[in-house]
Amino acid sequence: MIASSRHPFLQGLSKHRGAAPTIIVIFGASGDLTARKLIPAIYNLGQDNLLPPDFYLVGFGRQPVPDEQFRGHAEAAVREFSRRPPDAEVWSRIARNTSYLGGGYDERAAFDRLQALLAQREALAARELQAVFYIATPPSVFRPILENLGTSGLARRHFGTPLVIEKPFGRDLPSARELNRVIAGVFDEPQVFRIDHYLGKETVQDLLVERFANAIFEPLWNRNFIECVQITVAEDGGVGTRGGYYEQSGCLRDMIQNHTMQLLALTAMEPPVSLDPEAIRDEKVKLLQAIQPLVPGPQGDVARAQYEAGLAGGEPVPGYLEEPGIRPQSATETFAALRLAINNWRWAGVPFYLRSGKRMARRVTEIAIQFKRPPGTLFAGDELFNVAANTLAFQIQPDEGSTVLLNAKIPGLETRTQPVKMHFRYATTFGSNTPEAYERLVLDAMIGDGTLFIRGDETETSWKLVTPVLEQWQADGREGLERYPAGSWGPKGADALVAPRGHEWRKP
Amino acid sequence: MIASSRHPFLQGLSKHRGAAPTIIVIFGASGDLTARKLIPAIYNLGQDNLLPPDFYLVGFGRQPVPDEQFRGHAEAAVREFSRRPPDAEVWSRIARNTSYLGGGYDERAAFDRLQALLAQREALAARELQAVFYIATPPSVFRPILENLGTSGLARRHFGTPLVIEKPFGRDLPSARELNRVIAGVFDEPQVFRIDHYLGKETVQDLLVERFANAIFEPLWNRNFIECVQITVAEDGGVGTRGGYYEQSGCLRDMIQNHTMQLLALTAMEPPVSLDPEAIRDEKVKLLQAIQPLVPGPQGDVARAQYEAGLAGGEPVPGYLEEPGIRPQSATETFAALRLAINNWRWAGVPFYLRSGKRMARRVTEIAIQFKRPPGTLFAGDELFNVAANTLAFQIQPDEGSTVLLNAKIPGLETRTQPVKMHFRYATTFGSNTPEAYERLVLDAMIGDGTLFIRGDETETSWKLVTPVLEQWQADGREGLERYPAGSWGPKGADALVAPRGHEWRKP
Repeated sequence: MIASSRHPFLQGLSKHRGAAPTIIVIFGASGDLTARKLIPAIYNLGQDNLLPPDFYLVGFGRQPVPDEQFRGHAEAAVREFSRRPPDAEVWSRIARNTSYLGGGYDERAAFDRLQALLAQREALAARELQAVFYIATPPSVFRPILENLGTSGLARRHFGTPLVIEKPFGRDLPSARELNRVIAGVFDEPQVFRIDHYLGKETVQDLLVERFANAIFEPLWNRNFIECVQITVAEDGGVGTRGGYYEQSGCLRDMIQNHTMQLLALTAMEPPVSLDPEAIRDEKVKLLQAIQPLVPGPQGDVARAQYEAGLAGGEPVPGYLEEPGIRPQSATETFAALRLAINNWRWAGVPFYLRSGKRMARRVTEIAIQFKRPPGTLFAGDELFNVAANTLAFQIQPDEGSTVLLNAKIPGLETRTQPVKMHFRYATTFGSNTPEAYERLVLDAMIGDGTLFIRGDETETSWKLVTPVLEQWQADGREGLERYPAGSWGPKGADALVAPRGHEWRKP
Repeated sequence: MIASSRHPFLQGLSKHRGAAPTIIVIFGASGDLTARKLIPAIYNLGQDNLLPPDFYLVGFGRQPVPDEQFRGHAEAAVREFSRRPPDAEVWSRIARNTSYLGGGYDERAAFDRLQALLAQREALAARELQAVFYIATPPSVFRPILENLGTSGLARRHFGTPLVIEKPFGRDLPSARELNRVIAGVFDEPQVFRIDHYLGKETVQDLLVERFANAIFEPLWNRNFIECVQITVAEDGGVGTRGGYYEQSGCLRDMIQNHTMQLLALTAMEPPVSLDPEAIRDEKVKLLQAIQPLVPGPQGDVARAQYEAGLAGGEPVPGYLEEPGIRPQSATETFAALRLAINNWRWAGVPFYLRSGKRMARRVTEIAIQFKRPPGTLFAGDELFNVAANTLAFQIQPDEGSTVLLNAKIPGLETRTQPVKMHFRYATTFGSNTPEAYERLVLDAMIGDGTLFIRGDETETSWKLVTPVLEQWQADGREGLERYPAGSWGPKGADALVAPRGHEWRKP
């Protein structure tokens, strides 16, 4: 509702996508994310004719870099990271309007130069341009950038200037609140687009469509029919060269608090009153607020562990403590699992199991709804009947799609049953060249559609849930930190979370 | 319950399959069905080691045929019609115990000779043999065979001797009742196995498994969530050389009253208390009894039509009246469609549409459950949203399997939706060499499992429903008989049956 009031054409998920004339300013222009994701996303939007006719790109960074060199850097990024090879004509249209501005993030004069550059671009375009400020820097400079956007007047240059801000959004509840406070001093909440790139993935959006454009799921989507829900975000890679960053973060902050909780919210929320961004985010917040506080510690609702040496793709790999940049005796968890209870009419009594980890057996992100078993009156009690619990799984990556596990008769002269899978695979139906998450998110920010971004109260609610766990772990150090071999599905403590209800983790 | 009491190992669908020592007597041994279906079924049971160690086959027919010649005829049948090429060793084991007996079906002495032959085989086997009497003759001689089986004492030779009887089981309610009366004078109902070979098809059996071994269907399986059910049994072939037979029958008798009504009963019945044959058949009868009487005539619940010249597989084909053996101005329907209402708590208000025909656009048998649309609050009212009603389709033939029609997001930067299909295909999962219906049915009759056969009260209930329609059509002659081009989906009158509720026939 709030977002829609800004532009008459903003109606959330439901509408056509036409962006106003735009100048996008990327802070952290020489960073990894800019090269790997943002520039390729902008290029692909251009190739799909989804950039507005008047489109300008400004890279902002600490180093002084000539425009020409930045354009070369950007073109190399497209060449290396775009899902489609660059078309010379498309790229030259973007490159022509691309420039660079060097300056300190805490240097007010640099923001005045930026102000002048925007004015100059507007003169060139002979029209007003919407400025999109995209903060893709490390979090240490979020604050000076925000403050300078405020004091320079850039944040309110035009009514509704969008601010895009990358993760991590805080590292606990107090820091997230503080960051929201700083933002709120400069931008109105509807201007703010907090990135969680998982929300840009096709299957995450499809989850909304499958839940609410089909009549057969909603009747089953509650405590009467669902036994448990499992959300897995598993990586097979280790910490690699990101040890320095990861030591400050750990799995709960890096994956669970944001991506995994977002998947949970979309899976479990009530149907929104409309597809308006605020309507959807209102439901997500309500869901997150209904989660019962977590009990850390032994016999509690959480497990944490660190990977040891093991195998990845058949090759021996080192344990976390042997990786570069890791402190000796580091207590940083590379795996975390949670058991959540949601206290509302729909979900009371249905456990939600969340897990994420590095160096797990397979790279897979999925949401699995496990239904209750049929009453054992017919197909039960005989070794001929291998009856599994029905499961609906949304696979987010890789091989996006959805699967229903059903029991069917094995052809033959005995009535034997066996679980079989019904599949819908994106790649089979639609081909595999689907847009990257960042294309969707950059476009949505230009258009002002906040559906796939995190609202301030969402991020605080989510931090509120995990912060007591983080504090307990901090206090415990390595005590209670389990270990698991690289290439496995995690530690025993994770199994202990699901065992009391007789459940088992999937091995997807 | 009744069936189970005969043999301790008889427990219906649920159990292992071991037949007692058996001698099977086929009446109509030189007929088409024997060559095309029964002999190959017996052969394949032999190849799968499902015949009992003591197994004897007797062909009974009007012509005098030497044993050796009959064995040659049978071997040729296996060679031509078996789904697997004959293995010499398997066949020779069966052939060794195969013999022929010539005689009139109304000739009592022939049945005495049969009695003597059975005794001789029992002496050879040095044990008692269960005799299975399989009547595969035209219906005109059902009665004399049954009477001779009675008066000769063969029917009660051993306790529980199974009688298998082929279709057509009567041609209206009075004749079905009369046939049941004759049978009941000779056999107990639990001895009687009325064939509807559709019930032997794998997907029909899988329908039972999918309905009751999965917890996700039953909650949706009622008037609250289902908009309508469509059952289609479409042939692409014409009447061919069977004109003489077909003139006496027509589509309603030949396909709807038996196959299609059976599919309906299995789809719509209440969950049985067990997998015991009588428990399942009790539920089928209850369902058939709950069907509201049909209103024939204009604006009624039925449509009938005859095919005209048209195309089949791109080739021009003649109309029904031009086929060999068809009376000029014949009023026999080659297409029939019914709209049924089921007056019970589960189905009140849900129309069931049944149709069958020859020379239709495609050969396909399917049961399609069409669910209600989701409320139009979210994905509706925009041309970007192509939201179909969810449909669960069981495809019986060809390409057995099941499909769910879902709405999913089309990958891309707009939120467009499109119906997509989730598939489970038997051939993909299990390979394509599945047993033929007759293998299952012959084995079930030997074992005494009546689940997949029609009980006497079932056939009468079904005839009771269609007989008033047959009588009306008889009285109307060609008046009200529509026509449809060969290769189409049928006449306008069929569309008129579904139009009042805004439904459309599927084009599967």
